[in-house]
Amino acid sequence: MSQTIVIEQLRSRGVEVDSIVDLVYQLQAPYHPGLTREECRESVMHVLAKREVMHAVVTGIAIDRLAEQGLLPQPLQTIMDRDEPLYGVDEILALAVTNVYGSIGLTNFGYLDKTKPGIIGELNRQPVHIHVFLDDLVAAIVAAASARFAHQHEARSYIESAPGVRDA
Amino acid sequence: MSQTIVIEQLRSRGVEVDSIVDLVYQLQAPYHPGLTREECRESVMHVLAKREVMHAVVTGIAIDRLAEQGLLPQPLQTIMDRDEPLYGVDEILALAVTNVYGSIGLTNFGYLDKTKPGIIGELNRQPVHIHVFLDDLVAAIVAAASARFAHQHEARSYIESAPGVRDA
Amino acid sequence: MSQTIVIEQLRSRGVEVDSIVDLVYQLQAPYHPGLTREECRESVMHVLAKREVMHAVVTGIAIDRLAEQGLLPQPLQTIMDRDEPLYGVDEILALAVTNVYGSIGLTNFGYLDKTKPGIIGELNRQPVHIHVFLDDLVAAIVAAASARFAHQHEARSYIESAPGVRDA
Amino acid sequence: MSQTIVIEQLRSRGVEVDSIVDLVYQLQAPYHPGLTREECRESVMHVLAKREVMHAVVTGIAIDRLAEQGLLPQPLQTIMDRDEPLYGVDEILALAVTNVYGSIGLTNFGYLDKTKPGIIGELNRQPVHIHVFLDDLVAAIVAAASARFAHQHEARSYIESAPGVRDA
Repeated sequence: MSQTIVIEQLRSRGVEVDSIVDLVYQLQAPYHPGLTREECRESVMHVLAKREVMHAVVTGIAIDRLAEQGLLPQPLQTIMDRDEPLYGVDEILALAVTNVYGSIGLTNFGYLDKTKPGIIGELNRQPVHIHVFLDDLVAAIVAAASARFAHQHEARSYIESAPGVRDA
Repeated sequence: MSQTIVIEQLRSRGVEVDSIVDLVYQLQAPYHPGLTREECRESVMHVLAKREVMHAVVTGIAIDRLAEQGLLPQPLQTIMDRDEPLYGVDEILALAVTNVYGSIGLTNFGYLDKTKPGIIGELNRQPVHIHVFLDDLVAAIVAAASARFAHQHEARSYIESAPGVRDA
Repeated sequence: MSQTIVIEQLRSRGVEVDSIVDLVYQLQAPYHPGLTREECRESVMHVLAKREVMHAVVTGIAIDRLAEQGLLPQPLQTIMDRDEPLYGVDEILALAVTNVYGSIGLTNFGYLDKTKPGIIGELNRQPVHIHVFLDDLVAAIVAAASARFAHQHEARSYIESAPGVRDA
Repeated sequence: MSQTIVIEQLRSRGVEVDSIVDLVYQLQAPYHPGLTREECRESVMHVLAKREVMHAVVTGIAIDRLAEQGLLPQPLQTIMDRDEPLYGVDEILALAVTNVYGSIGLTNFGYLDKTKPGIIGELNRQPVHIHVFLDDLVAAIVAAASARFAHQHEARSYIESAPGVRDA
């Protein structure tokens, strides 16, 4: 299974799938009484199986890792060392992850990236490692999993019941 | 001045530039002691002068307005009537606005769209008019103005001072 | 099936699924000896079943249609009447369609939008109807179907065979 | 001047500003009789001065360079070695560059990335170096410079002359 790579990469940087599932659950529970963690996990696993997600995650983590080792060419090493707030490439990669289940994930991504709950905040406060990309990527995975969840569960029958669809 | 069109369009739908300036000020004040509303207004006016912003705003407002009048072809009329949560085209237009000052605006857009402060919440709670696009567009304008502000004020001299830039 | 709506909408504006399949076939045949039109059609049908695609298509076609009827509020009506080259919202909607199978569709979208083969050129040269959105949407559907095709057929076993993946 | 960094980075990988100007000229000349190379160069220099462009270019070139040296963590090293066609992160970074002058650059980006004229093709055919990101970045810079050019030169007075703008 291709998620294996993403899961191993995330774990090697201190992020367990469980921490991601926690955030999806927190975000979705208010809207879905009776929601189980198992349903959230299923959505997360689907996101982690997407090729775009794997590619963004392995790229972002590679840059974080090389920055920690001081191996990046300049001026990228300096940008990463300072966690330059105007860098923006971390948000760009995160957007590619968020988009795997459509644009409705954008809102949750921004909210998570601003409020930094759970593991996202831990990555951010953490003094030794460089996580310029990783915290955004985790927020994006949570946002995408929530978007997928919304597509599965809130998909009401508006299509079939729309009046006048035939003569549109 | 081309902002005139955008300003008139927003006003015709109940959004004053002042309400947008309020949100930029709220969002940026914690990070910038001594920030004035005038500086925030300047950023907002720059955003409103961008052609992408004008095009997104006039398009979104046109669809909102036609939806209110019941003039949209099906199935779009039904989608708008229900404020279908999975529609997503509103977020897509908003993203185009947010991006005029780069990807760093994404986070603030999502945060505003989720927490709906000030005029964004008023548009949303408002029972008569249809504002499927407008609330997202306003959040995006605020996010873009904040991004521009960050580009202007936080742009530290990391470029000039980066060690080894020459041999990069 | 939800594609039905998209197929009907496209047909009502002069675009048959067959014309879309033709373009996918033309684009992919050089890379895949033995490719059948049936395989191309399958990819197109998958793209047309995506909710993002449906929403973008019904929105774009609604604006085209209302422009033709002169029913859009100003200044959007004028922008559409002139097929204003700097409008850009048509490309934004098209990008949302192209992205349903990831960023690799971007290249083909741009190529099709520039060279305008087959039905895309016909829509463009056509004197009576307004197709500001439709030609871009068709190019985007072809690009997305080609991207899906690439994901299905070119997906080599690079994941399983990558050396050192385990210790990454 | 901040373009200096981008110009040096591009040159260190075999791309002169002149080669980029050539492509902008080729792309725009058919539409603008009397166009000079100097006007094209001015647009290119504006694009290269944008912070998003600098960040995307230094990031993409860093990954190309580390791939050549075999220093990337797995599985990214393998993906880069194979120039994996489904990678997609190169297109994502390129999109961020293309977008600095709005979505109208998308079409030219795709066209250039598919037809690979001039320096783009040279980078691609070149047997020793790894240019997974660089060829896309150059195409994106050309597309953005062309978009800026269109904004400057084709901006007709549609705004001022639009009938009914006031009562929109």
